[in-house]
Amino acid sequence: MGIIKKIFTKNTRLSPEDGIFFDEIYKMLGFQPLDLSHYRKAFIHRSSNKTDENGNPINYERLEFLGDAMLGSVIAAHLFNEVPTGDEGYLTKMRSKIVSREHLNELGRDLDLIKWVESKVSTQHFGENIHGNLFEALIGAIYLDRGFTYCEKFIHKKVILPYVDIAKLEGKVISYKSLVIEWCQKEKKAFQYEVYEDNGTEGQKHFAVKLKIDGRIIARARATSKKKAEEKASQRAFFAFQEKINKK
Amino acid sequence: MGIIKKIFTKNTRLSPEDGIFFDEIYKMLGFQPLDLSHYRKAFIHRSSNKTDENGNPINYERLEFLGDAMLGSVIAAHLFNEVPTGDEGYLTKMRSKIVSREHLNELGRDLDLIKWVESKVSTQHFGENIHGNLFEALIGAIYLDRGFTYCEKFIHKKVILPYVDIAKLEGKVISYKSLVIEWCQKEKKAFQYEVYEDNGTEGQKHFAVKLKIDGRIIARARATSKKKAEEKASQRAFFAFQEKINKK
Repeated sequence: MGIIKKIFTKNTRLSPEDGIFFDEIYKMLGFQPLDLSHYRKAFIHRSSNKTDENGNPINYERLEFLGDAMLGSVIAAHLFNEVPTGDEGYLTKMRSKIVSREHLNELGRDLDLIKWVESKVSTQHFGENIHGNLFEALIGAIYLDRGFTYCEKFIHKKVILPYVDIAKLEGKVISYKSLVIEWCQKEKKAFQYEVYEDNGTEGQKHFAVKLKIDGRIIARARATSKKKAEEKASQRAFFAFQEKINKK
Repeated sequence: MGIIKKIFTKNTRLSPEDGIFFDEIYKMLGFQPLDLSHYRKAFIHRSSNKTDENGNPINYERLEFLGDAMLGSVIAAHLFNEVPTGDEGYLTKMRSKIVSREHLNELGRDLDLIKWVESKVSTQHFGENIHGNLFEALIGAIYLDRGFTYCEKFIHKKVILPYVDIAKLEGKVISYKSLVIEWCQKEKKAFQYEVYEDNGTEGQKHFAVKLKIDGRIIARARATSKKKAEEKASQRAFFAFQEKINKK
């Protein structure tokens, strides 16, 4: 990261403030932002009343429109490939579950996007939907900055990998934690969820959880709440067990 | 085309029937199809009752879902870039005009996609929507075969270039032909629309029209109906005039 940033900084003369923003965005994306201005725009709330030289308002609302479209097509392609048995109606229903307002808000909140908002209104006065709107705008910015493939990369990493679990979306599995507990009780095994990292007080919260069964660490996971980290660890344990069962 | 086709044919041993299909698809796309099977699938109607080895139905309906999503995001990106003054509401409205059922049916009909349909029902018994559905499925097949960039290329060539005229979509211009006629009458100039090609009897209809003003050819255009060709020629004439006026 150091070298690339140096090149970037040299070419475009980043202010110290932009340098911090660059680092944070880079860390979140997992790849280098090329034109920071797109990302800046993704966090300008309409209340800031900014306009360009032609009097057009500058805020993230147009980027939201763009990001929403890109998110829709990346999820569509993912579902198309992952669920060869699903017909058009199934695919449509699954997609709308994944890109539901509630889910987008959760994604935006988990990334703590609101900390970058430029606004004349206190962020406390925003409703829940700002989280999802910022998340969509961020995807729009990625598309403008790096194109469809990077959009896809980001959505895979931040939406599909951690959140899109077909069985759960289909309602076949409500909670992996309860599956694990049930199994342990049936097999008379001791289980324990242990928090081993807790940044609960900082801006971007995160928790790390270990799942032990009969004293052995079976899975670890990190998430923005204890409950989510436990669920993720349970899911990992579940899939690890399934693999073992399939191999037998 | 000859050489590429030879390579393709050599590697995959195309049947004579596939060879014809390959040629036709290649001509329509303007780039080489790599895996014909995606395009075959884009024209299989559910009535043919085909299934794969696992019993999953094979027809174009899943591809429709995929193509619809890709079309939506390509049009979103185009509008975002073309209309910097349009807010989220405007962009959403414009996009839904462009991807309206009626418009998609027109696009599919113009490409005469129905001629490739594999079905147990006579094509005469299909409703109007089959044209749009096939068009979406074709876009889905392009995405699977060549990825997003080629999808974008195709949509630019077949949707945006010939059909997406912002002024017209906004209702500011109803007909370029009437604008041209009005102007000629005001300026006391003689005008004439002349059909110089007419394949009206063949499968894929097309007409070519010249627009002459005071005996000079001002614009030419080709389309699937005389009316459309005249409108296209008028639009070209209109933009050519506008450029002249702007240069003065």
